[in-house]
Amino acid sequence: MSKVITPKEQDYSQWYNDIVLKAGLADYSAVRGCMVIKPYGFAIWERMQSILDGMFKATGHSNAYFPLFIPKSFFSKEAAHVEGFAKECAVVTHYRLKKKGDELVVDEDARLDEELIVRPTSETIIWNTYKGWIQSYRDLPLLINQWANVVRWEMRTRLFLRTSEFLWQEGHTAHSTREEAVAETLKILDIYSNFAQEWMSMPVIKGTKTENERFAGAVETYCIEALMQDGKALQAGTSHFLGQNFAKAFDVTFLTKEGTTEHVWATSWGVSTRLMGALIMQHSDNEGLVLPPLLAPIQVVIVPIYREFEQLAKINEAIQPIKKDLESAGIRVKYDNDDKHSPGWKFAEYELKGIPIRLGMGPRDIENGTIEVARRDTRQKQNIKISQIIEYVTGLLNDIQSALYKKALTFQTGNTNRVDNYTEFKEVLDKKGGFVLAHWDGTIQTEEKIKEETKATIRCIPLNNLKEEGKCIYSGKPSAQRVIFAKAY
Amino acid sequence: MSKVITPKEQDYSQWYNDIVLKAGLADYSAVRGCMVIKPYGFAIWERMQSILDGMFKATGHSNAYFPLFIPKSFFSKEAAHVEGFAKECAVVTHYRLKKKGDELVVDEDARLDEELIVRPTSETIIWNTYKGWIQSYRDLPLLINQWANVVRWEMRTRLFLRTSEFLWQEGHTAHSTREEAVAETLKILDIYSNFAQEWMSMPVIKGTKTENERFAGAVETYCIEALMQDGKALQAGTSHFLGQNFAKAFDVTFLTKEGTTEHVWATSWGVSTRLMGALIMQHSDNEGLVLPPLLAPIQVVIVPIYREFEQLAKINEAIQPIKKDLESAGIRVKYDNDDKHSPGWKFAEYELKGIPIRLGMGPRDIENGTIEVARRDTRQKQNIKISQIIEYVTGLLNDIQSALYKKALTFQTGNTNRVDNYTEFKEVLDKKGGFVLAHWDGTIQTEEKIKEETKATIRCIPLNNLKEEGKCIYSGKPSAQRVIFAKAY
Repeated sequence: MSKVITPKEQDYSQWYNDIVLKAGLADYSAVRGCMVIKPYGFAIWERMQSILDGMFKATGHSNAYFPLFIPKSFFSKEAAHVEGFAKECAVVTHYRLKKKGDELVVDEDARLDEELIVRPTSETIIWNTYKGWIQSYRDLPLLINQWANVVRWEMRTRLFLRTSEFLWQEGHTAHSTREEAVAETLKILDIYSNFAQEWMSMPVIKGTKTENERFAGAVETYCIEALMQDGKALQAGTSHFLGQNFAKAFDVTFLTKEGTTEHVWATSWGVSTRLMGALIMQHSDNEGLVLPPLLAPIQVVIVPIYREFEQLAKINEAIQPIKKDLESAGIRVKYDNDDKHSPGWKFAEYELKGIPIRLGMGPRDIENGTIEVARRDTRQKQNIKISQIIEYVTGLLNDIQSALYKKALTFQTGNTNRVDNYTEFKEVLDKKGGFVLAHWDGTIQTEEKIKEETKATIRCIPLNNLKEEGKCIYSGKPSAQRVIFAKAY
Repeated sequence: MSKVITPKEQDYSQWYNDIVLKAGLADYSAVRGCMVIKPYGFAIWERMQSILDGMFKATGHSNAYFPLFIPKSFFSKEAAHVEGFAKECAVVTHYRLKKKGDELVVDEDARLDEELIVRPTSETIIWNTYKGWIQSYRDLPLLINQWANVVRWEMRTRLFLRTSEFLWQEGHTAHSTREEAVAETLKILDIYSNFAQEWMSMPVIKGTKTENERFAGAVETYCIEALMQDGKALQAGTSHFLGQNFAKAFDVTFLTKEGTTEHVWATSWGVSTRLMGALIMQHSDNEGLVLPPLLAPIQVVIVPIYREFEQLAKINEAIQPIKKDLESAGIRVKYDNDDKHSPGWKFAEYELKGIPIRLGMGPRDIENGTIEVARRDTRQKQNIKISQIIEYVTGLLNDIQSALYKKALTFQTGNTNRVDNYTEFKEVLDKKGGFVLAHWDGTIQTEEKIKEETKATIRCIPLNNLKEEGKCIYSGKPSAQRVIFAKAY
C-alpha cells in the first residue's frame, strides 16, 4: 500500500480515508458498515477511554455491564424511542444454524419466541433492570456507566465517523429530583467539553439541541459541537436529560423521605469511537496524522541516523540514558533502531502516524553533544544540547498540546460567521462553510425547510447564549437569540 | 432481599447464587441466559482485566477490535469450527423493525442477503482480516488481543459460569513457524496460570485437552483446571495451538526470508467472566464472598463504632490520618461513616462483600490508642496499636493472599486421588468428587463411555506428566500415563 496521502485541498474525504487506513488506525471489514480498529488506532482509543473513565469515577460513577440484546417489546414502551431506533436495528430471530446438504442454513426449529434487538443504546434494558434496584430514596442516586459496543444499521458509513457497529460509553443515572438530574446532565457535559478541549485540543461549543435533533426519548439533549477543517460541524458528545420518560415507561418509582411514591428522574450520556474521527480531522495535515501529545500512545520517537553498524552501536549507547531519562519523566518513548528500514523511511512513517516529537541522532550529533528535535505539528527542527533535552522535550510536549488547541480555536473563530439574511446565509454556507450564527424562529418547520434547501442543520442553541432580538433569516418572524447552523457529519 | 446466605453444606448451588446476588456481583436480566454485571462485580472484573492486560502488553501484545458480526459463510470455511459453534449461535436475519398497526414487527423488506452470526469467538473474522495484513515474514509475528463480548446460545445457564453472552479477551496471533506458535501458546498458558495462582490465589493444573475436549479448529488445546469446593473441576482458561488450520481455511500465506510461500501458523487463547465464578467459588464461605486482597476493589474498610454523634466526630478525626497513611501505602480503603446503617449492619455487609480487612474503631479504642483489625478469611480479630497499623495491615494483606492460596492448595491436594480400577473410580467420584488420577487407554470411545456412566470427563493430560505404565481403568488396555478425571462445571 502506497503511503502517499491525497492532499486535503484536492479531496478532503479521500484525505481522511487515507490517513485512517495508511496510519494504521482502522480498516474495512468483511461485514457491511463494520470496521476493524487496528492496534495503533485502538491504542489511541484506549487512552481516551482511560482518561474519560477516570473522570467518571472521580465524579462518583461506577461501571457495570448490561446485556447486548434487548427484547423487541421493550422498544415499544417509550414512544419516541422506538421511532428513533426501530428503523435501523439488527434483529436476532434464530439461535441455531444447521447443515442442509453442504449448505449451512438457519434452523427454523430454533426461532425465538420474541425477537431480540442488538442494542443501539441501552435505556430500555437498563431501566427495566433499575426497576428491581430502586425502591427508596436511599437507593438514589444510581450513577452507572457502561463501556460497550452498539449497533445502528447505517446505510452510508465512514470509518470511525459513522459505522454500523461502534464502541462507546453510555452513562445511565437515576435521581430523586429533577434538579439533581439536570445538574448531572450538565456535569457530564462539562466533563465532555473539558476532555475535548484539554486532552483532544479540540475547541467545542456547548449547547442544547432543537426538538428535531433531540435524542429519541429525551426532554433535553445537551451537546458539544466541534468544527472540522472542511468547515463541517461534528457532534462530539451528547448528554440527555430524560425527565421521567423512561421511569414511566418501565414503571420505576421510589419511596421519598416523606413517604410518598414518585417516578425516578433520569439522564443518559455518551461519547463514542466517533471521537477518533474528530481527533483525526481536527489536527491532521497532508503528511498524515497529527496527535495532541496527551493522547499520543508514543509521544517521542527516537531515530538513529547511520550508514554503518559501528555508528549504530555508538548511537545506541548514547541514546540509552536519554531514553531512560525521558521515561523517568513520564514520557512515552520509542527508540526505533530496527535495521529493516532506512532513517528516511522512518521519518515519513512517524510523520504519517502523528508522533508529536521525533528525535534524530547521527555520528555528528554525538560529536557535538546535540540531538535533532523535530516537532510534528509545525515540522520545525532544532538542534538541542543533550544535557538540556529532557527539559526541552517536556516543555515542547506542553507547547504542542496548547499550540494545537490555539490553532484549532483560531480556525473555529475564523470560520464562525454571523449572518442576517437568507441570501447571505446560503452564500456563506456554500463558499466558506463553518458555523453560521443566525436568527431562527424556533419552529421545526423552518428548521426543516432550511435543511432541505441548504443541507445545514441547527447544531445547537449555545449555552449562555446572548439574548439578542432579531428576525428569523427564513421566515422573518421574531427571534430572541442566534443559533448555530452548519453542515454536519 | 434477605442478606442470609444458604449454607453450602445444605445447597451448594443455592449458596453460590446467594453470594452472587446478595453481594451485588451480578443479576439476572430480562434476556434469557444473559446477565447484568453489577458495579461491585464489575469492579472486580476490571481489576482482573487491567492485570491481565498489563501481562499481555508486557509480552508484546497489542489490543485491537474486530466486528461483532460474522458472515454465515465464514463459519463453513473451517470444518471442525462450524461443527463446534453452529448449534448455539445468535443469528441476525433482518436490519429493521416496522409498525404493523399497534405492533412492532420484523420488516421482511429488510432481510439480509447473508445472515450474520453474533460472534461466539472471532477466529474466522480475524483470519479473514489477517489475509490483508500479512504478506511477508516482515509482517510476522502479529500479536493481537481483543476484549469483547461473545454469544453462545447456552440452554442451561448459571451466573458468571455459563451465560449466553459473556465478556472475555481473545488473543489471536500469527507466526512464521510452528515452533514459535507453540511457544506463544505455552507463554500464554503460563500467564494464565500465574494470574490464577498469584492474583486469584487459585491453584491450577496445566495440561492439554483430549481430542474430544479440544477447541473446534485447534491442533492442540492447553488449559488450566481448578478445583471448586464442591469437588467439581472448572476450566479457567484455554490456549490453543491452531496449526495452519485457519490460515488454510482463509488462504493466509506469507513470503519467507528464503523467498518461498507458506501458510501462517496460528494461536488463539482466552479467559472470560467465568473467572469471576471461579474466584467466588474458590474462597467464599457461609458468611459470603471472600476475596484475595490483590483483586479486592476495597481492601480495607473502616467502620466507626459509636452511639452518639459526638463520639463519631472524634472517631472521624482519629481515622483521617490512618486512612491517609493507608492510601499512601497504596492500599484501597473505604471509610464508611454513613449514618444510615448501624455498625452491626455494616459488619455483616462487608463480610458478605468479602472485604479482606475490616478496621473498627470506637471511643474506647481512641482512649487506648488501638484499633480492632478483623480479617475476613479466618474471621479472627485483634487489637493493634494505631502507631503500628500501617505496617500491620500491609503485612496482613500479604498474609491473607498467601493463606487463601495455601488453603485452596491443601484442599486441591486433599481432593486429588489416584485410583486403579473402575469400581474405586466410581466410588471416589460419588463420595468425594475431586480430581481423580487414573489410567486411560487414549481412545475417544473409552472417554465417552466413562462420561456416559459417571458424568466425569478428562479435564486434562497434565503437562510434565510422570510417565507411568498402567492399565486403563475402563478397558484394561495399556496406558502410559495417568490423566485427570473429574465432574466439571
